Amino acid sequence: MIVIGERINGMFKKVREAMQKRDAAYIQDLAVRQVRAGATILDINVGTASTDLVSDMVWLVDCVQEAVDARLSIDCARHEPLEAGLKAVKGKRMLNSTTGKEEDLAKLLPLARRYDASVIGLTIDEEGVPSTTDKRVEIAAKILAAAMENGIPTEELYIDPITLPVNCAQDQPTRTFSAISQFLMLSDPPPHTTIGLSNISQRLKEHQLLNRTFLIMCMAHGLDSAILDPLDEELMKAMLTADLLMNRFIYADSYLEASRKTG
Amino acid sequence: MIVIGERINGMFKKVREAMQKRDAAYIQDLAVRQVRAGATILDINVGTASTDLVSDMVWLVDCVQEAVDARLSIDCARHEPLEAGLKAVKGKRMLNSTTGKEEDLAKLLPLARRYDASVIGLTIDEEGVPSTTDKRVEIAAKILAAAMENGIPTEELYIDPITLPVNCAQDQPTRTFSAISQFLMLSDPPPHTTIGLSNISQRLKEHQLLNRTFLIMCMAHGLDSAILDPLDEELMKAMLTADLLMNRFIYADSYLEASRKTG
Repeated sequence: MIVIGERINGMFKKVREAMQKRDAAYIQDLAVRQVRAGATILDINVGTASTDLVSDMVWLVDCVQEAVDARLSIDCARHEPLEAGLKAVKGKRMLNSTTGKEEDLAKLLPLARRYDASVIGLTIDEEGVPSTTDKRVEIAAKILAAAMENGIPTEELYIDPITLPVNCAQDQPTRTFSAISQFLMLSDPPPHTTIGLSNISQRLKEHQLLNRTFLIMCMAHGLDSAILDPLDEELMKAMLTADLLMNRFIYADSYLEASRKTG
Repeated sequence: MIVIGERINGMFKKVREAMQKRDAAYIQDLAVRQVRAGATILDINVGTASTDLVSDMVWLVDCVQEAVDARLSIDCARHEPLEAGLKAVKGKRMLNSTTGKEEDLAKLLPLARRYDASVIGLTIDEEGVPSTTDKRVEIAAKILAAAMENGIPTEELYIDPITLPVNCAQDQPTRTFSAISQFLMLSDPPPHTTIGLSNISQRLKEHQLLNRTFLIMCMAHGLDSAILDPLDEELMKAMLTADLLMNRFIYADSYLEASRKTG
């Protein structure tokens, strides 16, 4: 699994405070710990409370890339800070995210191409979040075609079927599973697939149990990436075990420890 | 999920000793605890060390049905104790198991019919355990057809794709997942699907983690039954959460507690 660490996000109070105080040590510690726990990409999101999105984004990026070599996923709904973030990254980039809306594809895919960035493509279009598997696959195909037109290789595309909280949309998880299976049949090589894991359990009592159960069920259908909290140890153990059962690495009694050492 | 409790099995030393000493209290306590934990069927297996399979089987059945009302799954590879066990059951029965071998189908399905028993059908045939999905589906179809010929309703059939230890056959879990999905397309209504869960992790270090991860991955493909240890709390919590995500009951913050009370 390709783990995209979710923790550097202004939505978290401590991250927001560290950002406001320009407390680099706090952010860098979060970056280092996520990478040690197995993240190979770190999501960078300034949140919505920022009063200067551009300077906060650039500060976060500079701060994190001083501490780790991971690919940085620039996560912002606004164009200016998104581009400023991508520009500030010295190493590998990811653009988080485009939707399948014409306007987004036309604006964001050329930006990804310019900065040689991987792209997360959310299966949302002008009509919103689809409730069916078919519509998700249709939007995924549209994003895939647009990526190819813009010279973005399929291997750099991460299709996200959109996860809604289970208490609001209980019929959606099974549709997510079948959508993931079908995304993998859209091209050869297939695009990556990813989910924003914590959405399944927003503010729910058993959120950690729900997160790891949902992740494993998606993995059983071929999911190969997720935005998640790599510091949740039970989640990472479950994920590694599902990777083993998907035959993604060779069995050893010490497979958990082995992956931690190399991770 | 339909949970078949695995704990009353002569393979376990304490069960074997209790059986030899005719210690009904020990066996009945195991029966009651498994039912309280959520098992609706209890597997009854005298093991291989027994010197009198028939009398041990009948004693176990009598002992368990004094304590609980659950359906009893008579689990024996030898015909005489299997029939003696089925005969001794006063309530609902399950026959565990037939394979897809001609000889087994011809002998065991009429027996199941006579005792109005549900049947576990293992996808093994004269050539052994198949290594491909297709062969598993072919044997399942054969068992299904034979069950229909013998007047056994599809809803009473539990098809088991055969689970091998992950360290011996690491390419098999993904084939198990696809086999389960395909079993469900064999008929309408579909047969039940089941697995002998602990086989995935026989004598392995992380056996509980492997068990619950594999179970959830199978459930994501539609598995609706398993022979497992209902006294493994983390396993049962993961299972209930996967049931929730498969939209099998309505979300409540207290879904874990609620199911325990009614279970």
